[in-house]
Amino acid sequence: MSEPRLVEVRKNVLKQNDITARALRERFRNDGVFVASLVSSPGSGKTAFLERILTELQPEYRVAALVGDLATENDAMRLARSHAPVKQIVTGTICHLEAAMVERALEGWQPAPLDFLFIENVGNLVCPSSYDLGESVRFVLMSVTEGEDKPLKYPTIFNSADVAVITKLDLAAAVEFNSVAAHANIQAVRPGMKIFEVSSKTGEGIKDFLRFLTEQVPARKNPVSAN
Amino acid sequence: MSEPRLVEVRKNVLKQNDITARALRERFRNDGVFVASLVSSPGSGKTAFLERILTELQPEYRVAALVGDLATENDAMRLARSHAPVKQIVTGTICHLEAAMVERALEGWQPAPLDFLFIENVGNLVCPSSYDLGESVRFVLMSVTEGEDKPLKYPTIFNSADVAVITKLDLAAAVEFNSVAAHANIQAVRPGMKIFEVSSKTGEGIKDFLRFLTEQVPARKNPVSAN
Repeated sequence: MSEPRLVEVRKNVLKQNDITARALRERFRNDGVFVASLVSSPGSGKTAFLERILTELQPEYRVAALVGDLATENDAMRLARSHAPVKQIVTGTICHLEAAMVERALEGWQPAPLDFLFIENVGNLVCPSSYDLGESVRFVLMSVTEGEDKPLKYPTIFNSADVAVITKLDLAAAVEFNSVAAHANIQAVRPGMKIFEVSSKTGEGIKDFLRFLTEQVPARKNPVSAN
Repeated sequence: MSEPRLVEVRKNVLKQNDITARALRERFRNDGVFVASLVSSPGSGKTAFLERILTELQPEYRVAALVGDLATENDAMRLARSHAPVKQIVTGTICHLEAAMVERALEGWQPAPLDFLFIENVGNLVCPSSYDLGESVRFVLMSVTEGEDKPLKYPTIFNSADVAVITKLDLAAAVEFNSVAAHANIQAVRPGMKIFEVSSKTGEGIKDFLRFLTEQVPARKNPVSAN
């Protein structure tokens, strides 16, 4: 059986990732940028949510985004509509971002000093769990259309995240979403986890989320203009 | 860099999987059972779809299902409502089923002679791509809520599948689903791929899908009773 060797090699890769992630975190702290990453299943609405957040933050905050995908630059193009600096990381066949990919993406692409850098991971509820990207906070998104038991079925990714965001609230009635059950399942896996419920389409819940985000950074003395 | 070693070890694992899958396929053929697997992102509606299909087929056909998940036996419990024999495969941290898992699950769980065996893979649009399970046909599901560009972003899984099923058609209007774009994106990745559009909730499109399935097996001379 070659399984033990596979496990051993993977451990080395993960260890190297932790070293790189630690260096990134140090660098982000020195630069005074708050880094938030987003993980979720494909189609949970990460990009729509991020587009809304980038747009809403921009009048006052300096923001940028890195976005990972196996293929295509579609998400970067969508996010570019927010007029924030956006860079795509195409991972090929790799189902998660790694700290070294973030490091490489930042080389030669250093937007002006930032308040927030968002990292949208590859859509996957398994692979990204083990890879620290040096972020300050990791958001795990699940949409109301996915079923309330996702946290129980993918406990590792919920454990690796700091805050949960339930998306597509505008579809909650159509899919008979059971909010109480969803919250209970999240709490069963990660007791005390903070949960937001939002609709990127109608804007419901977005203000609460923005308040949480902006509380994480020092108040800006010289807000940038809305241009 | 340990990457080349990782790739090499993974190749060996995949090769062993192909050998096991080939043996399974031979066995299924000898047993006269048509095996269909389902892959999709988490929350695309595999279990709801399968519950409907198992229920609709049963009056006339002998059916059973294997269902993979990282954790919980929720899906097996949901599928058991169809009264078909169902067995859960809990994969732990592994984000896909492997042929050996199917082989082990069949040991000591041999339902009466079957016409159809369904295998619901772990919800993941990346990991299951490379693992042949000995199935006769692989269905890739995507729901209307996930965005029309999923095939472009996850081309490998669409390439590994034989037939696409667009699910949650009842939500198409609410999410402004663009069917033409979705079909075009599937065809761009896998020209000629057959596509079904269904709603497990309303039953729309289910009859067409059932007709396709039942055409794959010889007409039953002695249909089982509806009990």
